[in-house]
Amino acid sequence: MGKAITPRAEDYSQWYNDLVLKAGLADYSAVRGCMVIKPYGFALWENMRDVLDKMFKATGHVNAYFPLFVPKSLFEAEEKNAEGFAKECAVVTHYRLKADPQNKGKLIVDPEARLEEELVVRPTSEAIIWNTYKDWIQSYRDLPILINQWANVVRWEMRTRLFLRTAEFLWQEGHTAHATEAEAMAEARQMLEVYAEFVENYMALPVIKGSKTENERFAGAVETFCIEALMQDGKALQAGTSHFLGQNFAKAFDVKFSDKNNQLSHVWATSWGVSTRLIGALVMAHSDDDGLILPPRIAPLQVVLVPIFKGVDQLDVIRSRMAPVLAELRMAGISVKFDDNENNRPGWKFAEYEMQGVPVRVAVGNRDLENNTVEVARRDTKEKMTVSMDGLAIYISQLLNDIQQNLYKRALDFRNGMITEADDWDSFVNILDTKGGFVSARYDGSSETEEKIKDLTKATIRCIPLEADSSSGLCVLTGKPAGGRVLFARAY
Amino acid sequence: MGKAITPRAEDYSQWYNDLVLKAGLADYSAVRGCMVIKPYGFALWENMRDVLDKMFKATGHVNAYFPLFVPKSLFEAEEKNAEGFAKECAVVTHYRLKADPQNKGKLIVDPEARLEEELVVRPTSEAIIWNTYKDWIQSYRDLPILINQWANVVRWEMRTRLFLRTAEFLWQEGHTAHATEAEAMAEARQMLEVYAEFVENYMALPVIKGSKTENERFAGAVETFCIEALMQDGKALQAGTSHFLGQNFAKAFDVKFSDKNNQLSHVWATSWGVSTRLIGALVMAHSDDDGLILPPRIAPLQVVLVPIFKGVDQLDVIRSRMAPVLAELRMAGISVKFDDNENNRPGWKFAEYEMQGVPVRVAVGNRDLENNTVEVARRDTKEKMTVSMDGLAIYISQLLNDIQQNLYKRALDFRNGMITEADDWDSFVNILDTKGGFVSARYDGSSETEEKIKDLTKATIRCIPLEADSSSGLCVLTGKPAGGRVLFARAY
Repeated sequence: MGKAITPRAEDYSQWYNDLVLKAGLADYSAVRGCMVIKPYGFALWENMRDVLDKMFKATGHVNAYFPLFVPKSLFEAEEKNAEGFAKECAVVTHYRLKADPQNKGKLIVDPEARLEEELVVRPTSEAIIWNTYKDWIQSYRDLPILINQWANVVRWEMRTRLFLRTAEFLWQEGHTAHATEAEAMAEARQMLEVYAEFVENYMALPVIKGSKTENERFAGAVETFCIEALMQDGKALQAGTSHFLGQNFAKAFDVKFSDKNNQLSHVWATSWGVSTRLIGALVMAHSDDDGLILPPRIAPLQVVLVPIFKGVDQLDVIRSRMAPVLAELRMAGISVKFDDNENNRPGWKFAEYEMQGVPVRVAVGNRDLENNTVEVARRDTKEKMTVSMDGLAIYISQLLNDIQQNLYKRALDFRNGMITEADDWDSFVNILDTKGGFVSARYDGSSETEEKIKDLTKATIRCIPLEADSSSGLCVLTGKPAGGRVLFARAY
Repeated sequence: MGKAITPRAEDYSQWYNDLVLKAGLADYSAVRGCMVIKPYGFALWENMRDVLDKMFKATGHVNAYFPLFVPKSLFEAEEKNAEGFAKECAVVTHYRLKADPQNKGKLIVDPEARLEEELVVRPTSEAIIWNTYKDWIQSYRDLPILINQWANVVRWEMRTRLFLRTAEFLWQEGHTAHATEAEAMAEARQMLEVYAEFVENYMALPVIKGSKTENERFAGAVETFCIEALMQDGKALQAGTSHFLGQNFAKAFDVKFSDKNNQLSHVWATSWGVSTRLIGALVMAHSDDDGLILPPRIAPLQVVLVPIFKGVDQLDVIRSRMAPVLAELRMAGISVKFDDNENNRPGWKFAEYEMQGVPVRVAVGNRDLENNTVEVARRDTKEKMTVSMDGLAIYISQLLNDIQQNLYKRALDFRNGMITEADDWDSFVNILDTKGGFVSARYDGSSETEEKIKDLTKATIRCIPLEADSSSGLCVLTGKPAGGRVLFARAY
């Protein structure tokens, strides 16, 4: 079928690329580091986006849209943020092309159309948004502002990978403004919980909630909260971040409000985002050597029904017998496709839908009709069951729930087995090199030590878990006194 | 209340700007020609987008996402398209900023990070998409491709206006590929019908369907179909376009398919789009000197309920009496807000919701409670009615339908009264200068005459109506023999 992909054991990285391409999620493009999100991949993103959007609205947020471009003078206003993103900015310098006088039919940049001030293509929107909030906020009555934006952003990464790290990606970015520090901190924590709930309950992917060290913090944040997930190859992946920005942006853009006593203060801020990177995490967490495995709650297609037939007459009989069953499934809110394509054989279809990760396959042939049964196959375990057509919708509803739970449990068991404590340097290195996963270890709290561990092992501190470890001991590298354990890992 | 806006009769253009700002639809930004779409404006766009998206999916289309950037060499491949957009392209030339050695804390474009090939920020995506389709299409089995994309695009316009003409705007762009000319033409016509249905049935705005003359055609199209609407000031507005692209892009990007007989042919194409410009059309078509008027089917909020009370006790009584009424309205699928804000007086709220164009306002005070009635005010006609609380949801459902119909009818009557025939030059100019609207006239069919009429009057041929006029006569300008009437107008 020309659809075989590299097995994970042979080359995990190649397996991932093969899978993303062959399942029809994305494709490379003519633009360095930018991808095309194909219809199947985009349908998955739409499902994820719609769930998240509802969760944001349920927590009081509204959507808006801010410009793609950030004038350089605004971009540089918050110095740490600017410093953090300057090295990966696409910059618009001109606003016109003209005919190339040397080369008929070709165009050149018109040197006379140089912008007075260069425009940065947003890598993130704090600068342009806080420059706008300045006009919107005068009084405590204008607060809080709870805005989210669904947008494309550009970060000129040198090494790119489909979904995981692309020069352009799609994301949502929440930007909120508050009268008090406590309210802003509560917002940042709330959105971390929203992300964790989404990733665990919809993507079936367990996460560890924590905060970042100063080294790993978002440029311009006072505190970065994150959810960290574990991939099948034992590498960690940051699945979402929520930042408490303090008054950094309010000060950079001079955004003040007068309180009930007419006292002026700087506004408190948060920002938070998840991106199409989540699709990469989803692929790497659940899938196998036959293709994608998708959690039913976000799968673009939950059930495929494949008729096994010879000739149009048999197909017609199956079609008419299955019509009420299909209707029943749809009434139950299940998305289902009846694949009556006559050019492809059932075996080809089975492999195709396995590649695409459709959670449940139903096959029905002549003998099934006689027995009033169908053959149901679940994608996650590959089990096949013979099931009565009567009450099939109830059976499949339950099965979709079971698959959702099973995927989560499988990922959770794997993840839990991949958190290993290390109390000395040899063990620390050994775990990273042989087992992978999270290494739970102590360090002396200095950025130097953190940096040195990264240089020596490529492992970073993924997070200081929110469920704090109040014990103490010695730093795994320097032997100096150290506080509670944090989680190290090599990461995407 | 500081909310008064310039009356239309005084300055229509200023009225429009005031209204967009004061109704909270959009705001200016720090980026020349780019706007901020504020939450209320974005909620409106979300409603429009969701309806359109359903209509696209119902006609077999799927969504995908293609890169923001178009390498210059791809951009110039389809020469007419390139020529048409070259003069308004934002161009990315560098991918990095660095610290300014002359100026601490400031950044400059890093001259060493110049791109080998410049990237155009997409003004439209035919080039990048057809370069991708080349890899996706080999055989007739790969056709048709029916893809739509929701995206931001950038056209560096010199004169910008909120929603109507901005450097960056949001839109959808459909890009389809077909095996035959007839199928592509049918697709282009089908999408014109989808747009007309949306604009008429949801935006309550009557349109004239037609095709463009060569002068007004999309750069790179063989035929451009359009829907044209009329604004209250008598100027026309192009509300959507659907292009039959022939094989122009397939030839430019060498996209061929083999048919059932293994014959290679170039693929046939369409593209079609509507944008946030529609919001400008909506504002200008229906609104009045007190603010926005929104059609119920796309209004972010359909009903506002304003309690008239003195003190918390009265408010509590009203709240408890209205709770079941609110529930009943929501059960009927009506979006409704109970505005119990105690800081603003009812009169202030009335003005505010009129400014925002909320279709129905319900006021309820003490005496209403005694009489088991409410006061219902409709935004379109400003009529007020005293209505029983019993069965209020049914009453309001019907009222929302009536408002939707009334807005359409009002706009249709106005538009129909503004199509005027002219058979000589003096009448032609006179109608444009005194009455405005569409002038139905004949011309000799030459681009020169069309151009001359534009130079003399600023009127362009908005469309050759699909309901063809098979009569003949003389050209209104040159007196030469001419075919059926076409529609001229000054336009946005």
